[in-house]
Amino acid sequence: MFSEPKLKAYCESALTAVGASKEEAKTVADVLINADERGVHSHGLVRVEGYVRCLKSGGVKGDAKHTLVSDGPSYALIDAGGSLGIPVSVEATKLAICKAKENGVGLVNVRGSHHHGACGYYTIMMAQEGLIGLAMSTGDIIMAAAGTAEDSIGNNPFSYAVPAGVYGNICYDIAMSTVAMGKVAMAADEGRSIPLGWMLDKDGNPTTDPNVYKTGGTMVPFGGYKGSGLAMMVESLAGILSGAALLKDIHAWNTDPEGNGNVGHCFLAVNPAMINPGFDVAKRAEEMIEQLKAHRKAPGVEKIYFPGEIEQEKLQKSKQNGLELPPATVHALERTAAMAGVPFRPEDMEG
Amino acid sequence: MFSEPKLKAYCESALTAVGASKEEAKTVADVLINADERGVHSHGLVRVEGYVRCLKSGGVKGDAKHTLVSDGPSYALIDAGGSLGIPVSVEATKLAICKAKENGVGLVNVRGSHHHGACGYYTIMMAQEGLIGLAMSTGDIIMAAAGTAEDSIGNNPFSYAVPAGVYGNICYDIAMSTVAMGKVAMAADEGRSIPLGWMLDKDGNPTTDPNVYKTGGTMVPFGGYKGSGLAMMVESLAGILSGAALLKDIHAWNTDPEGNGNVGHCFLAVNPAMINPGFDVAKRAEEMIEQLKAHRKAPGVEKIYFPGEIEQEKLQKSKQNGLELPPATVHALERTAAMAGVPFRPEDMEG
Repeated sequence: MFSEPKLKAYCESALTAVGASKEEAKTVADVLINADERGVHSHGLVRVEGYVRCLKSGGVKGDAKHTLVSDGPSYALIDAGGSLGIPVSVEATKLAICKAKENGVGLVNVRGSHHHGACGYYTIMMAQEGLIGLAMSTGDIIMAAAGTAEDSIGNNPFSYAVPAGVYGNICYDIAMSTVAMGKVAMAADEGRSIPLGWMLDKDGNPTTDPNVYKTGGTMVPFGGYKGSGLAMMVESLAGILSGAALLKDIHAWNTDPEGNGNVGHCFLAVNPAMINPGFDVAKRAEEMIEQLKAHRKAPGVEKIYFPGEIEQEKLQKSKQNGLELPPATVHALERTAAMAGVPFRPEDMEG
Repeated sequence: MFSEPKLKAYCESALTAVGASKEEAKTVADVLINADERGVHSHGLVRVEGYVRCLKSGGVKGDAKHTLVSDGPSYALIDAGGSLGIPVSVEATKLAICKAKENGVGLVNVRGSHHHGACGYYTIMMAQEGLIGLAMSTGDIIMAAAGTAEDSIGNNPFSYAVPAGVYGNICYDIAMSTVAMGKVAMAADEGRSIPLGWMLDKDGNPTTDPNVYKTGGTMVPFGGYKGSGLAMMVESLAGILSGAALLKDIHAWNTDPEGNGNVGHCFLAVNPAMINPGFDVAKRAEEMIEQLKAHRKAPGVEKIYFPGEIEQEKLQKSKQNGLELPPATVHALERTAAMAGVPFRPEDMEG
């Protein structure tokens, strides 16, 4: 088990060593460690490596200023100026919460941003304030939009959360591809084939060969044109609306750390207490969950989960027992150490 | 080819004969015929039969009053009082448009409503005013939420639209099931099997037998838990938030015309000109479409379509050449005639 405070301190040191402010580094560490605690390791500390690389290469600016481009009672647009994505997203979410509390609805758009971790972090922030929250982000093109044979759209993450009383929060957090690329890579490593519907080969044909991800293949949207259209919704609300880069103009920060992605985000907070003062949204969410859990289970299903329930259980366990990290994250932190010039020894991080 | 004015007049006569006001009947006719014109016959005039039945049986009230439960600069909640779903949805959409034009964002919730036709009608209304629009609705349970073995959630339709300049409007309009039940029924009629992933049998097992829809089977959400979670988002924003009925408490208007469904809707209009005055949203949507259309096409694909493009083309053709109706719609109108006591002869409707 790892010590959360020690990992947090390491993450902050590495980020400030390459130009992030102390406050930004602290926010990034908090958000990434929360993802690891929830078991969403793909969006946890494993990402520090990429953020450090981009800060070092200039694709992310440690001293960027956030500018409020527009600011109304129920909306705002922030230009992040090429900063890290996580701190500006926390700031935007706080602003959306504030607007929703005062005026019922708060929509805050961001452009000039970067990868912002797991969207679910921001919607849970809203749900914890009694609000229904939506969050979404553009990303570089890694998926074939419906009809195309190649990378043409991001897998544009989308999340919503609803306060659910005794059940905590419902938190749905997905990307638009059928599965995460990590699952494809894992199948390739283990010599397994993949189901049709996960990947297209370089000619745009459906394939069961996971190795196509190394040879010009591309990911398939979940549910075909339905997932593809949702990715376009995210592109519209987070990219078109904000004035961020669109589609192929979003730099791939993993392979092009020097170019700023000009990523866009959209955060929407909705205040049930103001819109419908006669009802208790959390009680009603409990009722929805209880109705669903009372149904007959499908064969092989041991428990009917609501979105985010598994992650919530993992969070509680991590808080009690300490944090587990997969080897891939530990290796990424070791590589980060070399880049940032801040030594990392796993044995120093135990708790 | 059918005459649009003649069909419209018929639809109005049938609805007013069973208690709808002239104004409401006119709105319902407009919205349903628009769906037929766009080729979305499942949500066109075929629905008049059900609306007439519910009006006659008392499940829908022709003289219901709409009440404004809450009304802020950027939000409102309307209680439809058991009225037809389409007129209150047009009213709510107009209100959302008005609020978005004045204050940047307009979220209007509706409860005490009924089936409201195709969600895309309302989002296109918003897009035609230069706004990005979202619309969604609850519905009676006809689909298995993730983990359940039986009907447990509606296939909760969801639409968004974006103004797209020379391309008209992007309009995405889906239900959360893998396919519409009509496709399953058609396969059963024709003795064909269906792909795994469309239906579960009465025990919750995946099946290729379309006949299960008559023997306690249920529909599968598109993309598995991803589509299931989106259906819960719609239930949250249109049902929980508005105070409408939830899940099994929504009456199935097709089989229970006497019970009011207490259906909920949610309409969200977002004003790009206010949130981001420096950018032209329609030009940027054109850019997104053009980027997507410029990609290599997948094998067998003749044209890369954006969401709603096919329906938009059909609308133009219908306006030019007259309206085509499937036999199922004509039969439904014949049955409607008997219920409403207003004669219907297809040959009188030609144009």
